[in-house]
Amino acid sequence: MTTIHSRHYGWDNALPPAAEVESGSDVEFDVVDASGGQIDARSPREVLGSLDFARINPVTGPIFVKGAKPGDTLEVEIRSLRTSRWGWTGIIPGFGLLADEYPEPWLRIWDVDGSTATGIRGARVPVRPFPGTIGVALAERGAHSIVPPRQNGGNMDIRHLVQGVRLLLPVWVDGALFSVGDTHAAQGDGEVCGTAIESPMGVALRFTVHRGMTLAAPQYVVPAWCAEQPDPRGYHVTTGIAEDLREAARSATRHMVEHLTLRYAYSREEAYALCSVCVDLRISEVVDAPNWLVSAFLPLSVLAS
Amino acid sequence: MTTIHSRHYGWDNALPPAAEVESGSDVEFDVVDASGGQIDARSPREVLGSLDFARINPVTGPIFVKGAKPGDTLEVEIRSLRTSRWGWTGIIPGFGLLADEYPEPWLRIWDVDGSTATGIRGARVPVRPFPGTIGVALAERGAHSIVPPRQNGGNMDIRHLVQGVRLLLPVWVDGALFSVGDTHAAQGDGEVCGTAIESPMGVALRFTVHRGMTLAAPQYVVPAWCAEQPDPRGYHVTTGIAEDLREAARSATRHMVEHLTLRYAYSREEAYALCSVCVDLRISEVVDAPNWLVSAFLPLSVLAS
Repeated sequence: MTTIHSRHYGWDNALPPAAEVESGSDVEFDVVDASGGQIDARSPREVLGSLDFARINPVTGPIFVKGAKPGDTLEVEIRSLRTSRWGWTGIIPGFGLLADEYPEPWLRIWDVDGSTATGIRGARVPVRPFPGTIGVALAERGAHSIVPPRQNGGNMDIRHLVQGVRLLLPVWVDGALFSVGDTHAAQGDGEVCGTAIESPMGVALRFTVHRGMTLAAPQYVVPAWCAEQPDPRGYHVTTGIAEDLREAARSATRHMVEHLTLRYAYSREEAYALCSVCVDLRISEVVDAPNWLVSAFLPLSVLAS
Repeated sequence: MTTIHSRHYGWDNALPPAAEVESGSDVEFDVVDASGGQIDARSPREVLGSLDFARINPVTGPIFVKGAKPGDTLEVEIRSLRTSRWGWTGIIPGFGLLADEYPEPWLRIWDVDGSTATGIRGARVPVRPFPGTIGVALAERGAHSIVPPRQNGGNMDIRHLVQGVRLLLPVWVDGALFSVGDTHAAQGDGEVCGTAIESPMGVALRFTVHRGMTLAAPQYVVPAWCAEQPDPRGYHVTTGIAEDLREAARSATRHMVEHLTLRYAYSREEAYALCSVCVDLRISEVVDAPNWLVSAFLPLSVLAS
């Protein structure tokens, strides 16, 4: 199987492909962590105050998939993810859902084994690896920041893109020019502190071109065997209610941080990081004007030890 | 067990209690559908154009729980929900996540049995009953609309408040003055068209006062045995990406409507209603500025017949 090592920063449809592959091919990607190697298992927290943002979130690729044309769909099946033994979660000043409430940098290194990540006292976070950034080149010329997700996929941080799931990406340029990066060992829906358990991985993917299947935005198919099982101890859930949906998400997260600090004596930073790596934000209702409600689900087995 | 039949419209802390109960009591509530009886199993769709909104969403109560004081928490355990044999889902002009795209009234009556609701061709929606509106009186005097949820709970439309779940409500007035209504046979996270499978029910609840436990907003505890199992056929998922989180939810919903109309040949109204009763909106990321991403999960067993 072809293995791709070359990396790039941002989306640019003028980048030369690292490889050309046929529809139906399997390809392995060697993915570095989202800091691009600026953080390792011995880094002090100060590293987060001096990150070179030009080297943030490199992606491995691009791959030219033969036969893919604008208006087609590129199916990307997640075949396997080979995790590393470590990962990091950071609070980066100016970044995250509660950025205004967390001005200081904070960093935690996790030990990652096949099933569990440990690094915050008493917490055992289930490992469920996926690529945070996965996408294709945009139709528009020039270099485009990797940070926001767009109609080309990209930095979507969809934690459900685990092994066995099939991602459907709209194609915008000939050959699609696919790249992948930003691998996460675990994350909650929302990724509220802005980072997950950031961890380098080997990612094996299978590419299939669907000619004439046109999508406006990415879609994905979760087979039954890939769907998450409910937590064996259930959930504690906080709510946030506000006239703005993002403000409701902020409020639900803030209430979960309070719950974790009061009930389990975590620091505010540990609590915020735990929300980011294992708490799920769900939209309970977005129709009972003028107030919308977001629920934040904490799986209780994480804290059962 | 005490059974409560009296109903009221809106929250008003001057309403006389229908009953006074001790902490630890079980109470049964006779709950009418959200139209307050204006819709029945033989209603034509035109009824939605002439609803009397003063009679919308009545709640059964209020109950005075002895010992509950402002600053306490009232725990409400959902003991059981006795469903009826029918329900309705409507598109009400001016109401719903895509209100601007659905100006015409639309109504569908469902047959509800113990486990499945049928009423849209080929769709078998799992019945998972819960009360859409459940809350206590506000501290502020006067009559307050029942429509928006607030720090008193109310019209939260949290579909996870099923049998066995314990809801924790902040208390704002002596006795809490609890009421419940708006029972739903099934709903997706988001309730996007503005109505679920609206259905009258008997609701049995157990009340426990937690003195000195102060919450800013409702929370709830989902025991493991109450947590939803993954769909046995998996999920098809659409995404919406936008700079505004509600706009991302609108886009994900619109893409799911398109999927349901193209793939399954449903009408736009049937597709929108199916989203409301069984598709879940999850916040995938809300940190990769400036674009947020919402995923809409369609459980595939609903359409497997």
